[in-house]
Amino acid sequence: MAALRWGICSAGKVSHDFLVGLKALPETSHSILAVAARSLESAQAFATKHSIPQAYGSYEELAKDPQLDVIYIGTITPSHLSCAKMMVEAGKAVLCEKPLTMNSEETKQLIAFAREKNVFLMEAIWMRFFPAMFELRRLIASGSIGDINYVNVSFGFRLKPEARGLIDPKLGGGATLCIGVYAISFTSMVFGGEKPEKIHAEGTLSDEGTDNLAAVTITYPGGRIAQLSFSIKDTLPCEAFVYGTKGQLKVPKRFWCPTKLETPEGTKEFPLPKPYQPSEPTNFTNSVGMCYEAEEIRRCLQEGKKESDIMPLNETQLVADIMDDIMKQLGVIYFK
Amino acid sequence: MAALRWGICSAGKVSHDFLVGLKALPETSHSILAVAARSLESAQAFATKHSIPQAYGSYEELAKDPQLDVIYIGTITPSHLSCAKMMVEAGKAVLCEKPLTMNSEETKQLIAFAREKNVFLMEAIWMRFFPAMFELRRLIASGSIGDINYVNVSFGFRLKPEARGLIDPKLGGGATLCIGVYAISFTSMVFGGEKPEKIHAEGTLSDEGTDNLAAVTITYPGGRIAQLSFSIKDTLPCEAFVYGTKGQLKVPKRFWCPTKLETPEGTKEFPLPKPYQPSEPTNFTNSVGMCYEAEEIRRCLQEGKKESDIMPLNETQLVADIMDDIMKQLGVIYFK
Repeated sequence: MAALRWGICSAGKVSHDFLVGLKALPETSHSILAVAARSLESAQAFATKHSIPQAYGSYEELAKDPQLDVIYIGTITPSHLSCAKMMVEAGKAVLCEKPLTMNSEETKQLIAFAREKNVFLMEAIWMRFFPAMFELRRLIASGSIGDINYVNVSFGFRLKPEARGLIDPKLGGGATLCIGVYAISFTSMVFGGEKPEKIHAEGTLSDEGTDNLAAVTITYPGGRIAQLSFSIKDTLPCEAFVYGTKGQLKVPKRFWCPTKLETPEGTKEFPLPKPYQPSEPTNFTNSVGMCYEAEEIRRCLQEGKKESDIMPLNETQLVADIMDDIMKQLGVIYFK
Repeated sequence: MAALRWGICSAGKVSHDFLVGLKALPETSHSILAVAARSLESAQAFATKHSIPQAYGSYEELAKDPQLDVIYIGTITPSHLSCAKMMVEAGKAVLCEKPLTMNSEETKQLIAFAREKNVFLMEAIWMRFFPAMFELRRLIASGSIGDINYVNVSFGFRLKPEARGLIDPKLGGGATLCIGVYAISFTSMVFGGEKPEKIHAEGTLSDEGTDNLAAVTITYPGGRIAQLSFSIKDTLPCEAFVYGTKGQLKVPKRFWCPTKLETPEGTKEFPLPKPYQPSEPTNFTNSVGMCYEAEEIRRCLQEGKKESDIMPLNETQLVADIMDDIMKQLGVIYFK
């Protein structure tokens, strides 16, 4: 197969980091052909910085570019639905940043649309494609820690003044949507995409009406329990624990981009790939690891798949349903 | 004041460890005069081992011994109420192992009885008297971490076959009573003995009907939240975190007998006192630190107090109420 031809939708921070990941992969596998932003100026600046041949001042132009196989959507969350629909409509495979959309209803719409158009779609939960997570799933599936009865995940940091966007409802802010999605997706992965029996959430809201902190208990059939916490005002441990009847696994800080896994046999190391330019600064920790999800897209498209088995659309929907439930219980502005 | 004259009620494991703590203190402050067990034989063996002058084959004889100022009760939990009442009736000050009794109603009875008889009573939550906990309370009171909005505590270990008593209802087993009491008492201490607004618990039961695992969310007025977990089947981190608007504190493993405190200024160390016989094995970790609560009893009795300000009876009652609520929600056998 020829190199996968990428278009990048939005020239923001996360798109920058995604490119750092993409460029860690061989050019013969992934080529980056175009970038679009809402202003041509910022698209051009981004294109120059990353040596991308084509810059567009609108997402429509990107959608129409016939050279592209797949679009990475790195816009703010409230724009995900419209951008992703536009790309799907144009027949482009889509890798869309997490959370896939703002809520369960939008997610349902988008998934239905992609299926109707027979176009590949995946939520960019890069966490699931780290080698440490493949090993975690392998150990769970092998029965090495027995039956899983308890999961505990925390994700939290103290909001920096420049990151106020994380609490702004116009930008899709809030602890659940911005970071809780990882803790929930981790839990769902461990429990094999099973539907929870009960969800209980307590939390606090920002002045803007988004959630600052959520303390969540998810109960699965048979009394299996997950206890999660996400905060954008407190620095939580950011670890994930999986407890089974025969032993336990720990994904140490930071569980959503892990390079280590603690198992009953000891700690296993999974070093990150070397970035193309080791000196290039990134906005988020370990983001060169976004290359793993890019490789997954390539595998899927090579095999003619319309979704990934590792981050399937039904599970993206389930996580969106859980997030809706949590935010409703907390009284988040999106559900007022 | 002359040395405080101790009698020991029950010659079990925890009484052994309490003596290791007591003997780390000067004999001029604490003298150990008598021990009682249900059989004279085991009382005598214990007395010989610990050089205690008097051994009794019944708790009644201990209660009647006119030399004693204070009785340490180390029996199994279902016996706490009757033993403590007997000692209070005889006018002895009482330090009773945690949990004070089996439930809220018994605790109410016992506290009322001690108050009626004007006799000192304290639940042996030794955790609260560690120097690290004095420093934690000082830092919280000084406002150094701002207003507290979130607390997270875990306490759990994988049950060893010889510790099956921890799940036996006849012995007062169950995760909440045996170890959860510490996590709840820690939380209550941090929130100054305030009454919770709401309690939510999920968990799993043993075949015996006691609780194996509890995942608890306690909500305090103003949206302040505590998230707790206790397990006697999983090895949890056993750490306690206190998150404030200006910073956070961590009591590292094991939070209930801590020698360290992590503060925004760095980690502070609080080494344990040297035991009288450094080679003497103990049954529980850091149990020489039980000397701190023994010293508190001495201070209280010297000042003519009938209860401790640091572990007050109203708070023991509050914690008992919370434990009842949790165990009711889990369907623990005691509440069936």
